[in-house]
Amino acid sequence: MAPSVFLSHLLPLVRGSLCRKAPCPSRTAVRRSQFLSVEGNRVLAGTVDRFGGVTVDLTESGLPEDISEGAFGRLLGDSLVQWRAEGKVAVWLRVPISLSRCAAAASTHGFTFHHAKHDHAVLALWLGEGESRLPGFATHQVGVAGAVLDESNGKVLVVQDRNKTKNAWKFPGGLSDPGENIGATAVREVFEETGVRSEFRSLLSIRQQHCHPGAFGMSDMYVICRLSPLTHAINFCTRECLRCEWLDLAELTRTSDTTPITSRVARLLLHGLEQGFSEIDLSMEELPAVYSGRFYQLYHRQLPPTLKS
Amino acid sequence: MAPSVFLSHLLPLVRGSLCRKAPCPSRTAVRRSQFLSVEGNRVLAGTVDRFGGVTVDLTESGLPEDISEGAFGRLLGDSLVQWRAEGKVAVWLRVPISLSRCAAAASTHGFTFHHAKHDHAVLALWLGEGESRLPGFATHQVGVAGAVLDESNGKVLVVQDRNKTKNAWKFPGGLSDPGENIGATAVREVFEETGVRSEFRSLLSIRQQHCHPGAFGMSDMYVICRLSPLTHAINFCTRECLRCEWLDLAELTRTSDTTPITSRVARLLLHGLEQGFSEIDLSMEELPAVYSGRFYQLYHRQLPPTLKS
Repeated sequence: MAPSVFLSHLLPLVRGSLCRKAPCPSRTAVRRSQFLSVEGNRVLAGTVDRFGGVTVDLTESGLPEDISEGAFGRLLGDSLVQWRAEGKVAVWLRVPISLSRCAAAASTHGFTFHHAKHDHAVLALWLGEGESRLPGFATHQVGVAGAVLDESNGKVLVVQDRNKTKNAWKFPGGLSDPGENIGATAVREVFEETGVRSEFRSLLSIRQQHCHPGAFGMSDMYVICRLSPLTHAINFCTRECLRCEWLDLAELTRTSDTTPITSRVARLLLHGLEQGFSEIDLSMEELPAVYSGRFYQLYHRQLPPTLKS
Repeated sequence: MAPSVFLSHLLPLVRGSLCRKAPCPSRTAVRRSQFLSVEGNRVLAGTVDRFGGVTVDLTESGLPEDISEGAFGRLLGDSLVQWRAEGKVAVWLRVPISLSRCAAAASTHGFTFHHAKHDHAVLALWLGEGESRLPGFATHQVGVAGAVLDESNGKVLVVQDRNKTKNAWKFPGGLSDPGENIGATAVREVFEETGVRSEFRSLLSIRQQHCHPGAFGMSDMYVICRLSPLTHAINFCTRECLRCEWLDLAELTRTSDTTPITSRVARLLLHGLEQGFSEIDLSMEELPAVYSGRFYQLYHRQLPPTLKS
């Protein structure tokens, strides 16, 4: 799984460069390569980054919309001769879906899919020495569950999934939407499944799973948050849920009608209810992002006032 | 960002079904559709799941390798007439890279890329009512840093990145390889960058960032772990690091030559060193996965013995 030490030494460097360049080649061009020629052949115009990677965006390359696989394959072949002669280490191809036939032509030269979204695919070919050191694409989906605990009566909001054979009590939750923060997902999913409004209090637990059947074989990061109820009336989603109740927390820690992780988090919540939530919480704080100046959310144990910045 | 309540009610249900089916249609077939016909036209063979989604794998469909975009477009068009007549809610197309021209043909019928990996792309088209309720693909990359703290002398292992303009002290780290656990990434990256062997102790902090320039515009989950050193001799990677030192933890909490998150975690570590690491740690335990019987790693605050299962 892990690359050799030697190869991996370059990884963050290559990641740092190509990652930033791949999504927006035009903005990140260091120099625009010309239609140079090798033995008089045309070469695809691309942008070159300082690490020797070439990015060709077929939406900007002026190719005829009806270019054939054969014609593009020959143009790409001539271009590869040029790029190899120039010592380029990698080539990225951004292919609009309407020109997908060019991806087939590229595959005959060794290109493979790096990723694809909506209306385009990105292919890559490593030209450097040894194993490819190109960065990968997103590997994880993020699922978030919300444990809504009413501290006034020690009851927690749980559901039973309509689509599971074993109807075990669990906390409502679901997948984060792209760009959605963990706490926002928890509050949204709890409301959508149960009709209960709540507010984020802390992060309680994280689980990582690989080869996840619910993630197209990718990995899954499952986060459980502690929430406080803002409303109590249950109006649960009958398509998703068979049952939805405010269950006594102590009962949830004892019942066998639940999942191992729900039972574990229930005991964690009980501990927090009895000894103080500072015992179990990861609190959230906002810190400035170094490169963008924006703020991001950081979760960790509460620091004593003397150690806060 | 969040879908409407009504639409999202179906999300986990559709996710639960199509996610499991998309990666391996043959294994998940409920029934194999025949080459039925509408007005005598041929229809692509696909597998149908119990939620009314059709998955067509072009590597299994017996299409001629040289089928033209036009011919595939007509076949797909006739198939869509049939599937709509049958009330199917969605169509998934698994397209090998060699038949990528079929993706262009599919796009003329409204299909878009769902994802692509290595030698194939998966396209999708929502046929049901309203906005698409198809599940998304992986949204996050996971980066892990390792804070290696020598409790005997209060020194922590830090590096300065060769490729940053501001040479700030930070903890060594990098991206998780696919299928790699958080702790394993931390130990591997620390060794690759510094030459120091270490072992995982706990999870300290999590940060989520969106539209990450280092993640092809996707999201980034950055995890910082606490590690204990097994060796102390530094042999750092000169391609990645400008400097690498065992720095006094108290000094790291005071210096301005660091990043906000490193400074914050340094203060967290100092608190742990002085008051006990149980104050700052999320410990890791293994629990059985409900559906697979495999074990996964769960991170949360340590439970008192009386509450452990």
